[in-house]
Amino acid sequence: MSVPEHVITMEETLELARTIHADHPQLPLALRLMENTGVRKRHILRPIEETLKHPGFEQRNSVYEAEAKARVPAVIHRALEDAELRASDIDVIIYVSCTGFMMPSLTAWLINTMDFRSDTRQMPIAQLGCAAGGAAINRAHDFCSAYPDANALIVACEFCSLCYQPTDLGVGNLLSNGLFGDGIAAAVMRGKGGTGVELERNGSYLVPETVDWIAYDVRDTGFHFKLDKRVPGTMEPLAPALKQLAGQHGWDASDLDFYIIHAGGPRILDDLSKYLGVAPEAFRFSRATLTEYGNIASAVVLDALRRLFDEGGTPDSARGLLAGFGPGITAEMSLGRWTTSGSSPATARIASRGAPVTVTPNAFIDAFTDTEEPGRAG
Amino acid sequence: MSVPEHVITMEETLELARTIHADHPQLPLALRLMENTGVRKRHILRPIEETLKHPGFEQRNSVYEAEAKARVPAVIHRALEDAELRASDIDVIIYVSCTGFMMPSLTAWLINTMDFRSDTRQMPIAQLGCAAGGAAINRAHDFCSAYPDANALIVACEFCSLCYQPTDLGVGNLLSNGLFGDGIAAAVMRGKGGTGVELERNGSYLVPETVDWIAYDVRDTGFHFKLDKRVPGTMEPLAPALKQLAGQHGWDASDLDFYIIHAGGPRILDDLSKYLGVAPEAFRFSRATLTEYGNIASAVVLDALRRLFDEGGTPDSARGLLAGFGPGITAEMSLGRWTTSGSSPATARIASRGAPVTVTPNAFIDAFTDTEEPGRAG
Repeated sequence: MSVPEHVITMEETLELARTIHADHPQLPLALRLMENTGVRKRHILRPIEETLKHPGFEQRNSVYEAEAKARVPAVIHRALEDAELRASDIDVIIYVSCTGFMMPSLTAWLINTMDFRSDTRQMPIAQLGCAAGGAAINRAHDFCSAYPDANALIVACEFCSLCYQPTDLGVGNLLSNGLFGDGIAAAVMRGKGGTGVELERNGSYLVPETVDWIAYDVRDTGFHFKLDKRVPGTMEPLAPALKQLAGQHGWDASDLDFYIIHAGGPRILDDLSKYLGVAPEAFRFSRATLTEYGNIASAVVLDALRRLFDEGGTPDSARGLLAGFGPGITAEMSLGRWTTSGSSPATARIASRGAPVTVTPNAFIDAFTDTEEPGRAG
Repeated sequence: MSVPEHVITMEETLELARTIHADHPQLPLALRLMENTGVRKRHILRPIEETLKHPGFEQRNSVYEAEAKARVPAVIHRALEDAELRASDIDVIIYVSCTGFMMPSLTAWLINTMDFRSDTRQMPIAQLGCAAGGAAINRAHDFCSAYPDANALIVACEFCSLCYQPTDLGVGNLLSNGLFGDGIAAAVMRGKGGTGVELERNGSYLVPETVDWIAYDVRDTGFHFKLDKRVPGTMEPLAPALKQLAGQHGWDASDLDFYIIHAGGPRILDDLSKYLGVAPEAFRFSRATLTEYGNIASAVVLDALRRLFDEGGTPDSARGLLAGFGPGITAEMSLGRWTTSGSSPATARIASRGAPVTVTPNAFIDAFTDTEEPGRAG
């Protein structure tokens, strides 16, 4: 895990919002929503003054590319080191990122620049938003199921601060400006060996007729984030999907040993606690990510998983649920057991010496540029 | 397969280029390059006059979304019908498209609109360009290897004509304007059963240090296609990769029964014929796609495969090679056998009643907007 060096606290965020949106009729509501996120600070790529400027889509996308190239390799190095693997041991790179667009994907540059093999598969995904962290885990699981000796590298690179749009003044936008942060996470999934979560099953679920609830408007000024006010309530339809997946596996989603959940916002975690009948403490990893980094999109689940590792993991064979949520509305869910020795070679595990999702403790998770309420026209 | 209703012939393309670029110092070279493509006509989404206008990235992307929604479902219906499957039998939708950007991906809309299950996996890929057709086949193969009873739907939707940039005047751009076309292809890969190519192995290869040779510049005006003049020569490094993959499988890439190859341009096919020592006739499917539709990006391999089906397939157990090429420079390759009865249930096959890649014969493959040389400033 890596978060960038520039920090913006919630106090600063609120103060900026008050200044920039002084005349906004719904400012009090927006401030309340922001405070309720529980986000204490976020890390952002660039100083706040710069973050608040919009120099055009082209310029922003150039920043995305330059910063990704400057920051991603160190995070990958750390992930490989923790997994005790070399770049040449990796068979597929799953790169998820919805906050910049490159073709070829960064995967091609990474293969050229680091010591990956020329036959490393590339799986870049730009269109699953926050759900992409869960999707990356699931596609890595599928890959390792197809090739039991394979190793998959997952990289989530999210510079939400580069999507700040000063002219977007809806309450959902103001809230987003106080919610999202920047961050890079990398994880290695080994087909065999290592310590971590051994995945046993994965699944997806799309909530019908919610396709516009979380979406990008693609404009000349870049990606404009749209957030419907019904989104915080989506655990009501998604909790049954989590229960069903667990049920198919003979497990009870309400009675698992650990939960690694996308922390889109505080209500997601509160509601899930309610609908699953699970103590709020079960979501402490996700809650900590939200508090310290904000919503870092697809990187949230990887950072929450890193925190489980940092806590020393769980007893062997403890059962857990991982889930990313995002546009669609889509849930990408998986079930697995904590494993310290490789008993079942056919199933994939998110693994490493000590961290499945290797998060470099150094640099960098930035706060959604949008986070900077400020910079917006009144 | 489906190509759009508006057709532009090579004669019309050349005439437009002569008019629009009358003062271009390299016009004679550009005209010669265009003629040498062997493209006779392309199909484009909208009339040529409209195609030549650039109303801004936002407007274009709206056209992408509206046209994809209007045209993709019919192509999928036909693919499902040919595979004798219902939408509810599909476990994963792999949607590849590099000529428009949506988040959520079209996959979410398709699941809502057609009768796909809510737990259908979504795998949208926007960043592999022309190689994405091969990548989609390979990822479907991986998925069916992990879940032998699964069915994968592949959709390639490419509206290259929406990437026409009137201000791009390099020779590579002028050539692209005469080369690319629009088209939609869909294919079903069944884990078990059906008639088609039963895949046995797949692999990727990235040609080192060629990351800038085929690329998008992402600008306020949208995606700007960059094509390096060294691209047509890339079969020299890629032919050995094809040979190596075949060799790993105990096959000789020079001695296979059928070849389904991305027809990026005529030299790709000529060189591959030379470097593999294979008769030009072996690439007749790809050549026909290029001639009739132009380079339709990720849809080329699916259309070439459809032509193999239309020819009645090949004798049982005939061995073949499939390969997509694109930005990176990346090759996505696979090896398989023609199969009419499902003998080996563990391997995936691109299958259907009669077409593995189901190409609806109706509507629509459009010619790369860029194709319309015209509309450009001198």
